[in-house]
Amino acid sequence: MGKVVTLGELMLRLSPEGHQRFVQAEFFRAVYGGAEANVAVSLANLGQEARFISKLPENEIGRAALCSVQKYGVDTSCILRGGKRLGIYYLEQGASQRPDRVIYDRENSAFALSEENEYDWDKIFSGADWFHITGITPALGENCFRISERAVREAKSRGVTVSFDVNYRKSLWSKDRAKKAMEKLLPYADVCITNETQASELFGLPADENGSKIAEALIKKFDLQIVALTYRRTVNANRNNIWAVLFDGGNSVCSKKYEMDMVDRVGGGDAFAAGLIYAQMHDGYDLQKSANFAEAASCLKHSVVGDCNLVTVAEVEQLAWGDPSYRVSR
Amino acid sequence: MGKVVTLGELMLRLSPEGHQRFVQAEFFRAVYGGAEANVAVSLANLGQEARFISKLPENEIGRAALCSVQKYGVDTSCILRGGKRLGIYYLEQGASQRPDRVIYDRENSAFALSEENEYDWDKIFSGADWFHITGITPALGENCFRISERAVREAKSRGVTVSFDVNYRKSLWSKDRAKKAMEKLLPYADVCITNETQASELFGLPADENGSKIAEALIKKFDLQIVALTYRRTVNANRNNIWAVLFDGGNSVCSKKYEMDMVDRVGGGDAFAAGLIYAQMHDGYDLQKSANFAEAASCLKHSVVGDCNLVTVAEVEQLAWGDPSYRVSR
Amino acid sequence: MGKVVTLGELMLRLSPEGHQRFVQAEFFRAVYGGAEANVAVSLANLGQEARFISKLPENEIGRAALCSVQKYGVDTSCILRGGKRLGIYYLEQGASQRPDRVIYDRENSAFALSEENEYDWDKIFSGADWFHITGITPALGENCFRISERAVREAKSRGVTVSFDVNYRKSLWSKDRAKKAMEKLLPYADVCITNETQASELFGLPADENGSKIAEALIKKFDLQIVALTYRRTVNANRNNIWAVLFDGGNSVCSKKYEMDMVDRVGGGDAFAAGLIYAQMHDGYDLQKSANFAEAASCLKHSVVGDCNLVTVAEVEQLAWGDPSYRVSR
Amino acid sequence: MGKVVTLGELMLRLSPEGHQRFVQAEFFRAVYGGAEANVAVSLANLGQEARFISKLPENEIGRAALCSVQKYGVDTSCILRGGKRLGIYYLEQGASQRPDRVIYDRENSAFALSEENEYDWDKIFSGADWFHITGITPALGENCFRISERAVREAKSRGVTVSFDVNYRKSLWSKDRAKKAMEKLLPYADVCITNETQASELFGLPADENGSKIAEALIKKFDLQIVALTYRRTVNANRNNIWAVLFDGGNSVCSKKYEMDMVDRVGGGDAFAAGLIYAQMHDGYDLQKSANFAEAASCLKHSVVGDCNLVTVAEVEQLAWGDPSYRVSR
Amino acid sequence: MGKVVTLGELMLRLSPEGHQRFVQAEFFRAVYGGAEANVAVSLANLGQEARFISKLPENEIGRAALCSVQKYGVDTSCILRGGKRLGIYYLEQGASQRPDRVIYDRENSAFALSEENEYDWDKIFSGADWFHITGITPALGENCFRISERAVREAKSRGVTVSFDVNYRKSLWSKDRAKKAMEKLLPYADVCITNETQASELFGLPADENGSKIAEALIKKFDLQIVALTYRRTVNANRNNIWAVLFDGGNSVCSKKYEMDMVDRVGGGDAFAAGLIYAQMHDGYDLQKSANFAEAASCLKHSVVGDCNLVTVAEVEQLAWGDPSYRVSR
Amino acid sequence: MGKVVTLGELMLRLSPEGHQRFVQAEFFRAVYGGAEANVAVSLANLGQEARFISKLPENEIGRAALCSVQKYGVDTSCILRGGKRLGIYYLEQGASQRPDRVIYDRENSAFALSEENEYDWDKIFSGADWFHITGITPALGENCFRISERAVREAKSRGVTVSFDVNYRKSLWSKDRAKKAMEKLLPYADVCITNETQASELFGLPADENGSKIAEALIKKFDLQIVALTYRRTVNANRNNIWAVLFDGGNSVCSKKYEMDMVDRVGGGDAFAAGLIYAQMHDGYDLQKSANFAEAASCLKHSVVGDCNLVTVAEVEQLAWGDPSYRVSR
Repeated sequence: MGKVVTLGELMLRLSPEGHQRFVQAEFFRAVYGGAEANVAVSLANLGQEARFISKLPENEIGRAALCSVQKYGVDTSCILRGGKRLGIYYLEQGASQRPDRVIYDRENSAFALSEENEYDWDKIFSGADWFHITGITPALGENCFRISERAVREAKSRGVTVSFDVNYRKSLWSKDRAKKAMEKLLPYADVCITNETQASELFGLPADENGSKIAEALIKKFDLQIVALTYRRTVNANRNNIWAVLFDGGNSVCSKKYEMDMVDRVGGGDAFAAGLIYAQMHDGYDLQKSANFAEAASCLKHSVVGDCNLVTVAEVEQLAWGDPSYRVSR
Repeated sequence: MGKVVTLGELMLRLSPEGHQRFVQAEFFRAVYGGAEANVAVSLANLGQEARFISKLPENEIGRAALCSVQKYGVDTSCILRGGKRLGIYYLEQGASQRPDRVIYDRENSAFALSEENEYDWDKIFSGADWFHITGITPALGENCFRISERAVREAKSRGVTVSFDVNYRKSLWSKDRAKKAMEKLLPYADVCITNETQASELFGLPADENGSKIAEALIKKFDLQIVALTYRRTVNANRNNIWAVLFDGGNSVCSKKYEMDMVDRVGGGDAFAAGLIYAQMHDGYDLQKSANFAEAASCLKHSVVGDCNLVTVAEVEQLAWGDPSYRVSR
Repeated sequence: MGKVVTLGELMLRLSPEGHQRFVQAEFFRAVYGGAEANVAVSLANLGQEARFISKLPENEIGRAALCSVQKYGVDTSCILRGGKRLGIYYLEQGASQRPDRVIYDRENSAFALSEENEYDWDKIFSGADWFHITGITPALGENCFRISERAVREAKSRGVTVSFDVNYRKSLWSKDRAKKAMEKLLPYADVCITNETQASELFGLPADENGSKIAEALIKKFDLQIVALTYRRTVNANRNNIWAVLFDGGNSVCSKKYEMDMVDRVGGGDAFAAGLIYAQMHDGYDLQKSANFAEAASCLKHSVVGDCNLVTVAEVEQLAWGDPSYRVSR
Repeated sequence: MGKVVTLGELMLRLSPEGHQRFVQAEFFRAVYGGAEANVAVSLANLGQEARFISKLPENEIGRAALCSVQKYGVDTSCILRGGKRLGIYYLEQGASQRPDRVIYDRENSAFALSEENEYDWDKIFSGADWFHITGITPALGENCFRISERAVREAKSRGVTVSFDVNYRKSLWSKDRAKKAMEKLLPYADVCITNETQASELFGLPADENGSKIAEALIKKFDLQIVALTYRRTVNANRNNIWAVLFDGGNSVCSKKYEMDMVDRVGGGDAFAAGLIYAQMHDGYDLQKSANFAEAASCLKHSVVGDCNLVTVAEVEQLAWGDPSYRVSR
Repeated sequence: MGKVVTLGELMLRLSPEGHQRFVQAEFFRAVYGGAEANVAVSLANLGQEARFISKLPENEIGRAALCSVQKYGVDTSCILRGGKRLGIYYLEQGASQRPDRVIYDRENSAFALSEENEYDWDKIFSGADWFHITGITPALGENCFRISERAVREAKSRGVTVSFDVNYRKSLWSKDRAKKAMEKLLPYADVCITNETQASELFGLPADENGSKIAEALIKKFDLQIVALTYRRTVNANRNNIWAVLFDGGNSVCSKKYEMDMVDRVGGGDAFAAGLIYAQMHDGYDLQKSANFAEAASCLKHSVVGDCNLVTVAEVEQLAWGDPSYRVSR
Repeated sequence: MGKVVTLGELMLRLSPEGHQRFVQAEFFRAVYGGAEANVAVSLANLGQEARFISKLPENEIGRAALCSVQKYGVDTSCILRGGKRLGIYYLEQGASQRPDRVIYDRENSAFALSEENEYDWDKIFSGADWFHITGITPALGENCFRISERAVREAKSRGVTVSFDVNYRKSLWSKDRAKKAMEKLLPYADVCITNETQASELFGLPADENGSKIAEALIKKFDLQIVALTYRRTVNANRNNIWAVLFDGGNSVCSKKYEMDMVDRVGGGDAFAAGLIYAQMHDGYDLQKSANFAEAASCLKHSVVGDCNLVTVAEVEQLAWGDPSYRVSR
């Protein structure tokens, strides 16, 4: 089986420990993450070969970011080095009625200022079967939009399956700009991951009972193979309930639902994407099993510190269709 | 708008991390707190000018306590220095069926032994619009009772609004002594914060359906403008449900109720007091909005480490009447 | 009142902090535990004299293990020193849908390779009224089985009450070997602690409505005074509900049930055993009070970091039949 | 006595703990510092009123930076809020033969992009007796150069003493640009702090035996009252020896020399500046005492974690001319 | 061989980590120590039976203190429980030119207010061969002076050897009071540990070349068997050089000298006392070996975190007369 | 340029933080190391492709060990998985006169019990130019001796340069066994690293003035290209002075000498080996430059936490022949 290639920004995430507020923090936990990097690391932990593409500054902070994904076996041989700085996001983890807060400090990052022609697209896609990108990358500026478009086009032209996670971040761009970008990029996609809010805001598709109208509209509009709609209900900042619905044009299936006491909410969607890609790339996963596998992977991510899902296939399967007794095994 | 002045003891709080018991603790987290200091810091975080009055020892531990409130912009220019020691309280944070435990070691503190005449009452109340004190201060001994009485009298004589949080601590004094003190101090108050248990124990007022009989009796007895009754139901040591009822003689309003997964229970009442004072000092807060604002502030405190409520007006409002989606904003 | 003697392996437990996965951990929290050591420490914290018997390596890691139980006042004067290594178990604490994981690295430990004749049985049982052992000890190999058998025989011959916690660990031995061992050891026991799963797997006794058929069968088969059946329902990795049923041949009583937000799940059963032994050794605990005391002790253990239950009799009683208000006492 | 005003950038400093390299760090210690902020905090700890001027972003990271200096009593009432980001510098603390490493990520900070006319110069200098700025501020871009020039001109026009620490950072600007800026700014200064390397690189003044030729040339060229030359000899990354020489046109004095085992090297020069300003503003400090006081303050800084010198006048005096027995006082 | 009994106050020591100043500390490391407790723990680590006598409050902080010495095997069966509080001392560890600082908060402790008649002197001295006390205990007030006097008298009357470490703390009492107390207590002593400064301040004995005149005068005046004079030269707060001289009336011997890079300076003298007692109680230690053993023990203490010397006889001997290669043994 | 292959055991290293003794440690820092793994990681940090060969258990602790080297870009594709356990070594870092202590718990590890025929020697040496092994590997038992012998034979037969670090550990095997093994393995080596003590103990070669007689004898006996003798003088546990002498049959060169304040002593020799291999594999390093490069690399390792040298070529060169000013670069 071939490699999965993902492309995007990798940032330094700085977060106070133990529910402290920013103003109290004597230390920040330093982890490195970014939507597409998270997908690559998640896949590597599932045993799937994954290659991550980005640009990191030629300094020790850039190297620390690189090593953080290399640690899990992600192929970093196509990562460019240079530029000025590593993007940062500050994350304050909430609790109960106090929500998580994110402060972005990612402008002018090495990746955001990188250019389409710096990348060696042949090398990037050598041996690749799947390409994954999210709506965060084109949001990072004109350069990054062009890189995104080039990437999906290069992938498509090589017969590589393309998955696109809409991942709309309102602090990065306007709905209008996002909408236009999506309409240029999604035609290259085979698989699209989104949710009701985004469907409504970007595509003017109102929520319906199980999302089937949204899904059908998207499949038709962008000639997609699969649409995944993810659902999240927030009880409070610590407790969320999640599930997902998959559509393949003909069928729709709903995953198991999970009520979660969360450890770290960031990266839950990326873990879903990785789970879905994994399932679609391996035999024996029909649409229902794909939904259940992807959602179980996403659920487990919420129990893991950091952006990336550090779980094995066996762990996902145990939750998805094994006996989730939640007991100590000894 | 003028300043809020609060007066009381500021202590060193020592607590093991991570649910450890005292006997296990290799480290104690050191924060500084005390009911009236907590109110001042909470107000400063809400953007309200606040001045805190106390006496701290002339050593580096006293200075650390002073800096801890100065950090948030509280005016510390009237704090006396001298005396022997900083009072301490040890806090063991419980979990599930194991309750929090407090061990007081606050006798003979610089504040407890300070005297009425050491304080410069003119300077203390210069520019002040509001004065807040709790029932803990008069409980700290004869000196502190006299300071409390002098303070409310000085405030009253200057037309400063006085709020009094009954805050009965049975480990500090007997019901009988507390009752007598309250009867001397409350006549100076405009606003009184208490709860059903205290109403019954100290004022002989039994619980009634929504507290209105308690409130009316207190308003009448002490000629109060507002009585606030706070309610807390404990599911276990981590989960409490809270709400409050405000009375202004004519009307009674009930705040929103919150089911909380708590991070740090201490200071929840002080955060309520600060929220109530803030609302009463600003335009646009009727009794209902005051109740909702104060209770939302109190709720948020339970998600913050330490005694003091480190939240902004925007955060309180988001919870009180905004869209508390508990989602990451990004 | 005499001493309680317990005998078994004491291991180094290494666990990442803060829900981290093994692969992320820069630090392991080091605590020392083992079923019978946990019972001894729990009893010492309840104020009951306890002596722990084991063999620890003659190096500083062995001494650290010894000091860890000595700290709480357990009599360590009969612990042998020598052999090659201290057994280890790695514990990854789960969260929500991700269960705890244990990796044993305990083969060839000083205790596992120790021999029956190294122990001075007269000294071990001097002043003893009660002896406790679990099914983990005979599982550790032929030597340990012989030590277990010798220990219960020596106890019995001296009129010392014997309690046996079945504690079947499938990673240590087969059902078949366990079954044969139990049948040799349980005839020496007066008190047996087990659960429905073990009753079914090892004794072929299917679950019945309240366990009475299991209990009666065991009492009859092994001539026991008391059988305790413990129950655990897992909501997820953080939340378990527990209760227990005690049988004394004539009567059966059910303890209070507890819904727990757990801090540390390991040692919950050992805390139950210690609570039961404590109750049986002291006046004023009938079967119902014994059940309630033991289960409250077990419940509190789940709120304490480490293997051992660091709670006092007053705390257990407060939960068992006091007013468990879960409020801060101050 | 009046206030000291300082103006410059305040950054977030992120450093791994315990001599770890960047690539190893799971945590970064977060402190806030910057040359002129360090001077203000040092002065506040010496008991001297100090006001710090800067611009910080209107987010919680900006507020954390503000609170970090407010904690020590620095007047923050003139700090502007707004702009995009807080500048960052990563600091890897070396050891033995491995030097400290700094990675700057300070471009486009709120301060660097702030403009001369945003500042309320009347308010800034109200009550001021002394103004301090360093060569780092004009290095931060054209805006900052204009702010620097305006500030010294405004100070001078109000009769405020101006001190200028040359502080040449080659990673921020070229020698040529620095030289031109210095020649525009130093004519406003009364006190100049520099060292042999800078004197040679920026002013073409070669090192001489005790620096007197450098000092005389600078005094003459820029009409200065005092020139301070600081000296540092590095044994290795942990051990440095320091001293300073002061010139007032007529006399030259050399401070005591210190051989240091350093805890945190950053801010040593700022502590010297604060010590010198303090001495010059108080009676009883002739040139020799000023040199000794300033150098003792600088020496003590190297034993304090973070950028700022958290020591009292008594501590500085104890080292400068008391009995530095280095014994525990108890 | 019999037990060593020591009597004194056991305190909670609170110290910031990593050279932080008090005002910066988010955490305090909590260890428990006190001169005589330190000696008992040091002896227990050397394998010598030791019993510690004190009074600790009947709360969980008192229990934590008790467990801290029990951990190392010290006999705590004669420790009284009761009284109000555990004494505290805050310790700020200095570095380089910044000395350690101690702030005492030990007044009104359970021990300081305990009374002579609360102690069961027969039980205390049962099985004892040696009694050790320091000049800190009689300094804690009239009660403690009486306890000290009673203790040495009771020891003497039972033929127990008495060692007395002068340990003059000027913050606890005046020279005059100390002198009077020493003159009452030292006549009961067989062994006296002091230094040149104390000899001069308390006994009017000026320093002489190797201390022999001081020692002879003390031996004569108080009819002592052994006088130990300890020497310390401070290079800076991290580096001290130490040695000791022993006198037995006829001979004087000087120990090896040690140049130390210190980790924790507190308890160095107590480790010397423990080493001296150990040597005197065991065969094969003549005066020279005693001096070398005691000083090597003291030296090693300076490399150990906390008040107590956690080293074995083998480690002391390796340094005292083995091959101190300071290499890793593997 | 080709890859460097190294083969050996990778262990979990557990060490208390901050100079704590084992008995005090609440946490162990967990790093992974082993002589040959350290060389591979050091080389990867120098930018040299490196492949590490070992066998790790098929559990999460084994995976953590694997990820720890993969993080730095070491090729782990030939590492076997299986067997029972990961070897452990406990490291207590000393200070001043207290030496580091190591407790091995490495018997029965996956690697120690692995067998020669499990390894795919063709794959292992594909693309390899250099093979490195140490005397620790053959010391781990008969299996490991056979693996070692096979590895050097396979390397030699493919024309791969072989370096051998004698690294005699007396706790693992006797001198006699070591001597016999060396005599079988060294004939395959091109480069041998040893020291005076080993030369004397294993080869009967007494120390001479600059080691030239030792080196000549070894070169002659084993037909070596290069012999490196490393020297270490211990001032105390924190301070060591090191240098090395290289011989190539004709010439001998001595490196620069370094006086070090050490952070972490383990892996200093492995860093030397990696530096020497790097220099020998790259153009422009004559014998003198090789010696200086290797020794500077070794020196820097002593400033890095953990077993592995995380430094770049630029850093080594800066120390080896640049301007080692030990100043902050900013």
